Amino acid sequence: MHPTLFPDIIRPTVLIDPQRTRANIWRMAHKAERLGVRFRPHFKTHQSARVGEWLREAGVEAITVSSLEMAVYFARHGWADITVAFPLNLRELAVVRSLSEHIRLGVLVESAEAVLALAQAVEVPVDVWIKVDSGSGRTGIPWQQAERVEVLCRQVREQPSLRLRGLLTHAGATYGGTTPAEIVQIFSESNQRMVALRDFLARGRVEGLEISAGDTPGCTLSPHFTGLDEIRPGNFVFYDAQMLRLGACSEEDIAAVVVCPLVALHPQRGEVVVYGGAIHLSKDNLLVDGKTLYGWVVDLNEAGWSRCTADAYVARLSQEHGILRLPPERIAAMKEGQLLGIIPAHICLTVSALGRYRALDGTWIDTLVRASG
Amino acid sequence: MHPTLFPDIIRPTVLIDPQRTRANIWRMAHKAERLGVRFRPHFKTHQSARVGEWLREAGVEAITVSSLEMAVYFARHGWADITVAFPLNLRELAVVRSLSEHIRLGVLVESAEAVLALAQAVEVPVDVWIKVDSGSGRTGIPWQQAERVEVLCRQVREQPSLRLRGLLTHAGATYGGTTPAEIVQIFSESNQRMVALRDFLARGRVEGLEISAGDTPGCTLSPHFTGLDEIRPGNFVFYDAQMLRLGACSEEDIAAVVVCPLVALHPQRGEVVVYGGAIHLSKDNLLVDGKTLYGWVVDLNEAGWSRCTADAYVARLSQEHGILRLPPERIAAMKEGQLLGIIPAHICLTVSALGRYRALDGTWIDTLVRASG
Repeated sequence: MHPTLFPDIIRPTVLIDPQRTRANIWRMAHKAERLGVRFRPHFKTHQSARVGEWLREAGVEAITVSSLEMAVYFARHGWADITVAFPLNLRELAVVRSLSEHIRLGVLVESAEAVLALAQAVEVPVDVWIKVDSGSGRTGIPWQQAERVEVLCRQVREQPSLRLRGLLTHAGATYGGTTPAEIVQIFSESNQRMVALRDFLARGRVEGLEISAGDTPGCTLSPHFTGLDEIRPGNFVFYDAQMLRLGACSEEDIAAVVVCPLVALHPQRGEVVVYGGAIHLSKDNLLVDGKTLYGWVVDLNEAGWSRCTADAYVARLSQEHGILRLPPERIAAMKEGQLLGIIPAHICLTVSALGRYRALDGTWIDTLVRASG
Repeated sequence: MHPTLFPDIIRPTVLIDPQRTRANIWRMAHKAERLGVRFRPHFKTHQSARVGEWLREAGVEAITVSSLEMAVYFARHGWADITVAFPLNLRELAVVRSLSEHIRLGVLVESAEAVLALAQAVEVPVDVWIKVDSGSGRTGIPWQQAERVEVLCRQVREQPSLRLRGLLTHAGATYGGTTPAEIVQIFSESNQRMVALRDFLARGRVEGLEISAGDTPGCTLSPHFTGLDEIRPGNFVFYDAQMLRLGACSEEDIAAVVVCPLVALHPQRGEVVVYGGAIHLSKDNLLVDGKTLYGWVVDLNEAGWSRCTADAYVARLSQEHGILRLPPERIAAMKEGQLLGIIPAHICLTVSALGRYRALDGTWIDTLVRASG
């Protein structure tokens, strides 16, 4: 590592490459436009007003968030069309009501109880999306239960304070795909189920519904978005080791690493220890050749960081310690106090844990989690 | 759950039982006193000035932390003898110097480079502990390399700004023990290695060294602390699902749960979904009967929470979602918007992620991570 790089980074810090981030943003924005769908990116990955501006520059007007706190933050930063892609939390109806008076707010429901409670809580109409489980088994009404969806749609339409917008899914099963072809297959199947459900509803005169879908692996790899009205990928702004593993990005697309001070050398066991543990990187991981690992190790340089190699990875994590396995010749060139880069397994959790991040030009970028200063 | 309990908890929140916490504190303080060792508890678990006061009431004067940030926080709250139980980070020497001018500061070293850099950085003497790896394979000089330890001890003693205090280890291998007897065995073996190392050093005229050790499983389960001068357990203030699994605590000792709003019912697949995901609970986990789980589900009641059962657990986590498996009769009695309790796999990571917590009497307790208001 160049010794004068980032002398003021003294603790684990997310470092982003703004050029790669912007390239990732424009690529996805262009794809959405070319394939004729609304691009409503998920802001839970970057959680930052500044990165949000880069998305705005690429034409984004509508966004997705994963919590009402995040919706409040981005509403304050000028976003006026926000979907909270998380099941309606009945304990936060006061926040929903307040937000609905200031922005075009979209919420997810999957039960009559939620519909009624929501309808009573708000005065200014909110957009309602029926959460559908198109195969991932997390939340939503199972796609096979079309009658149940139909009943719920009618219940929403009975409420003057609710505006039935459409059907929303997250094809989370794509994260379990083992090849790009398999991911595209899972994504397409999920979308076909949504289209079949919309067709069923239209036959029953529940018409005009939109379909919202989109996880990063599916949106990146699929050559078509047939049947969809909008996509909501989030991770694609930075990508990470899990996405690289899935083949959903190339190394040149990875736009964020965690910079960690090296605190101990253990050449005899082929390891070094960095300040950067489970509370920084998260314990999310990936399985590679039968090994569980928490990220790839890269060297920092003036242009950003080096490529990763199969023999340099985060092998174990405790609360503050990261134990890295490295080849002997790389350890021999290392010194206590230097910085190393880690491509984390799951960047969304890392950003959420660390808050504000550093850009390659040295500027700090604030997030919802943590502001500078 | 009693419907009027905690109407103002609307998001994932750590709830602690102060009585159990204090009982855990007094039990460990009493054991340390009875067995004649200094009790230097690790504050990384609770990270709170207020819980720190409860430890002070139990006679604690010296504490352990895992970062310099944490040392600064507790120094501001009146703690004057703090060991930073993490390898010296050469990028934070300015913080070390500043702290050393205000409190009795202890730091860990394991290399000549760190010793020299530290000696040059400080003027007021700091306590130096040689970090020894007594078998856990994380950090420290391996216990078998006694000559290397001896050389480092002499290097420390040559420096007027350093005060060689002793040998420090963390017998982290106890977390891998499968029975209490095995944990006690690992802990004792680790301590015997430290004593043998001290004896070796004394024969070479490096005398007067203390031995500091102590992880929660070992300190809780071992009937003796033979050879030790101080213990540094941390997790014991709250305990958690991993400690319960190890047999290091009983259910009645568990003093913290994460309270989560229920957002979706899925009786057909035997699951409910709560607002409480990987960014709240962490992805740390435990393996029970071949299943990976992220915590146990309990019901809240006026006295605190119910016992856990083998059929109610956190089965999966995504960023904000927790997917809980539960028996049908319990799901049948549940409603969207109610609160559920989760005994997390690893409370240290959960507290670090969520910051301030709630006591059973309704008061908020601030931490380093997050203050109220």
